[in-house]
Amino acid sequence: MSHSSLLMFVQEMSRMLQGKPAEPEILTRGAELLATLVANDNWLPEPFTRPHPQHYQQYLLYADPLDLFSVVSFVWGPGQKTPVHDHMTWGLIGMLRGKEVDTHYHKQANGSYLPSESVVLLPGQVGSVSPATHDVHEVANFYQDRTSISIHVYGGNIGRINRHVFDPATGLPKSFVSGYCNSVVPNLWK
Amino acid sequence: MSHSSLLMFVQEMSRMLQGKPAEPEILTRGAELLATLVANDNWLPEPFTRPHPQHYQQYLLYADPLDLFSVVSFVWGPGQKTPVHDHMTWGLIGMLRGKEVDTHYHKQANGSYLPSESVVLLPGQVGSVSPATHDVHEVANFYQDRTSISIHVYGGNIGRINRHVFDPATGLPKSFVSGYCNSVVPNLWK
Ligand SMILES: [Fe+3]
Ligand SMILES: [Fe+3]
Ligand SMILES: [Mg+2]
Repeated sequence: MSHSSLLMFVQEMSRMLQGKPAEPEILTRGAELLATLVANDNWLPEPFTRPHPQHYQQYLLYADPLDLFSVVSFVWGPGQKTPVHDHMTWGLIGMLRGKEVDTHYHKQANGSYLPSESVVLLPGQVGSVSPATHDVHEVANFYQDRTSISIHVYGGNIGRINRHVFDPATGLPKSFVSGYCNSVVPNLWK
Repeated sequence: MSHSSLLMFVQEMSRMLQGKPAEPEILTRGAELLATLVANDNWLPEPFTRPHPQHYQQYLLYADPLDLFSVVSFVWGPGQKTPVHDHMTWGLIGMLRGKEVDTHYHKQANGSYLPSESVVLLPGQVGSVSPATHDVHEVANFYQDRTSISIHVYGGNIGRINRHVFDPATGLPKSFVSGYCNSVVPNLWK
């Protein structure tokens, strides 16, 4: 299989980010590039599509060695979802396969978090997060009976960033570093 | 296993090459960095150390998405060697395991190529090639009874570059693109 779609995405993101644009430009242009990437579901190698029976999987697909950005395949088994969490950097979510529900949470005066809008993402659609405006959310597979896959892009090496999960009722944060489940990533030229 | 040695090498090479230094500086500084990388043989994941019974293997370890450089694990089975070939870009050879013989060839007035010095590379040692001075060579495993491994670094994506093998007697070139044998590369953060 040719990974040239992923290679072209990585090349365009590298060129853009090496020019050090402001975050709004990154989110706008990045969303266009990611929409192009997830417009076709013919490029993701099978080893990076496998669900885990107990929890969602985060397969690193590419990370810039100097932490400009990272690209991750999120694979949601039936009914799986994240805790309420933050990112500490901008992020883009491109839906590749299946359907997911992205629920944003907003901090209240008493410290708790309340859900607001829920966005349903269909294949080809792109969502976002940003510490500037909406960094806290929960993501769930829409389906109880099949796998969904989305491609996430972040303004750093997301698997290495110290971030937080929240108990929405109390707002209490717990620190975590997500890491990755895979020891090898795609050869973009194979 | 931590690949942090390889990650640090890739980071330092990326920083250096993004500054667009001249080739002599690349070869000097790159050789220092590569010598540090191959000073220890504790970081190369096993899937990228496997010889093939019939021919030497070229495992891509890392390539810059914008073709600044690439890093390849060359695995030589017993008695295996390359044809006489060129690179069309600067290259560095860092010996990791075993021993290899690097023989340089020089073009004669009649078009043929004659071998000159043969360099024996031991673990930790670094050799080079450069179109400016010495681009044509042949590399052989010193051993007839065991595997040798060297880590090569090139000023482009070497598996994609159009280059040449030569019949030394006639000097006749044949075009080739080497490609890579692996469909996945190491996750540098795992
Ligand atoms: Fe998230
Ligand atoms: Fe060579
Ligand atoms: Mg780069």
